[in-house]
Amino acid sequence: MDAVTRIERSLDAAIALAEGPGSPPRLAAAMRYAVFPRGARIRPRLCLAVAGACGDDRPGLAESAGAAIELLHCASLVHDDLPCFDDAATRRGKPSLHRAFGEPLAVLAGDALIVLAFQIMARAATEAPGRLGPLMLTIGDSVGMPVGIVAGQGWESEPRCDLAEYQRQKTGSLFAAATAAGAAAAGAEPGAWRLLGDRLGEAYQVADDIRDAVSDEAELGKPIGQDAAHHRPSAVLQLGLPGAIARLEGLAADAAAAIPPCPGAEALRAVILLETRRLLPRSLAVQAA
Amino acid sequence: MDAVTRIERSLDAAIALAEGPGSPPRLAAAMRYAVFPRGARIRPRLCLAVAGACGDDRPGLAESAGAAIELLHCASLVHDDLPCFDDAATRRGKPSLHRAFGEPLAVLAGDALIVLAFQIMARAATEAPGRLGPLMLTIGDSVGMPVGIVAGQGWESEPRCDLAEYQRQKTGSLFAAATAAGAAAAGAEPGAWRLLGDRLGEAYQVADDIRDAVSDEAELGKPIGQDAAHHRPSAVLQLGLPGAIARLEGLAADAAAAIPPCPGAEALRAVILLETRRLLPRSLAVQAA
Repeated sequence: MDAVTRIERSLDAAIALAEGPGSPPRLAAAMRYAVFPRGARIRPRLCLAVAGACGDDRPGLAESAGAAIELLHCASLVHDDLPCFDDAATRRGKPSLHRAFGEPLAVLAGDALIVLAFQIMARAATEAPGRLGPLMLTIGDSVGMPVGIVAGQGWESEPRCDLAEYQRQKTGSLFAAATAAGAAAAGAEPGAWRLLGDRLGEAYQVADDIRDAVSDEAELGKPIGQDAAHHRPSAVLQLGLPGAIARLEGLAADAAAAIPPCPGAEALRAVILLETRRLLPRSLAVQAA
Repeated sequence: MDAVTRIERSLDAAIALAEGPGSPPRLAAAMRYAVFPRGARIRPRLCLAVAGACGDDRPGLAESAGAAIELLHCASLVHDDLPCFDDAATRRGKPSLHRAFGEPLAVLAGDALIVLAFQIMARAATEAPGRLGPLMLTIGDSVGMPVGIVAGQGWESEPRCDLAEYQRQKTGSLFAAATAAGAAAAGAEPGAWRLLGDRLGEAYQVADDIRDAVSDEAELGKPIGQDAAHHRPSAVLQLGLPGAIARLEGLAADAAAAIPPCPGAEALRAVILLETRRLLPRSLAVQAA
């Protein structure tokens, strides 16, 4: 089964659990709306790629770890879109969750998706109980305080913040979770795999800045030009477009070099380089080819 | 060390983790504000009482389970108070979190408290890794979908709902988590302990309705008369005040009878009856004595 199919099945099973007997139907529908139809699924694909490189002896656990990370990512998007943050009207090419279901269900859907991530990990870990602790620590610390994605979002409410630290927390930490959790699910030591995720997170952040500057809304599925409009820091504003593209390529090379020794290192290196190339908007990808 | 001291220390250690190096200071302060000064801490006290009745051979794990449940309870209060739900101005006798810190930090503090609950359980479980899975399942399912407290809150966005089921999810499930998690932390089978928590959750809900009807705001630390104002179902509106008090006493007796066989059953029975008596507002408790 290919990685995308494994991820979609695992996410569908997770949402089916939330839709179980006794559940409030509109909240259940809001959760499904937040997770499907699929986005790029870049974090869970990364998680499965690393698990594969480490031998993937517990594929069900790796799938649940990847799905948990994607649920947490979706939860952060739903809450980031709320009126008190970005007040985004669209997401993934359709109305944002609070526009479609109202603000109360958007708050609750985010909360329920966060909890669901831990519910599915606890279920999957019955096949390898000793791996649950490292997996939960890796993923929990990458999402919560003091330096996970929620912390990163928290810096937007501070009078001053360090840009690199802000981006490392808000974006990088969930990429580091994806690589480290993939390793932990396969029984490898997760710590050695964080650097790869860190570099990919930085690359993703630069690519996001590039897409925000040069894509169109139809391709991106959400409004463009938000960085300039909200006076947010951006690699394109800072380095110019060619400089930002060069930075992205440098980070992709750093990422490929950061893969720890493992049975599938060579294949993983190829995946990493391909994935980072796919982050560019279509127009630039065609130019680059 | 008495139970209250154990709980406060464990909660302080949890918040100190969130305040660690790299954390955004205002979000960290908002989390501390949500958790201290203490409320009744009824759920973690219940968790420790059950762990004690089951032998409490891993006191650190029981304390973390109790603290995790309290963090999740505090998170639910912060989100319930948001403008899109109750828009409460006060909580525990001080301004609600969103009034004190603004709405973005209230959303994020709730999210971060949810994640923190799982972060501290993962850390505590290193002393008994095999207990982490049952503990996470018990607590995760009691908070998330399909039938945890978030699901209960979700029923408020439905056109129709079953009152008993709504209350069981919104209030009862975290009491059932407290009793079942106390057992799981001490290595006992959690399932047998849910009925006790269910009954106590019902008792607490009835007591809450009584307090909302007859307390004053100074005693309660939050506005009173909210059930009537928001047309919410209430045992007092349904049964009258004497009927509601009789119902509370019946539920306390049912709870005491639901304690499974265990070394400390007798002592636990006494705690349960004392705690349910403490749920009544001072004026009624004096009358009853």
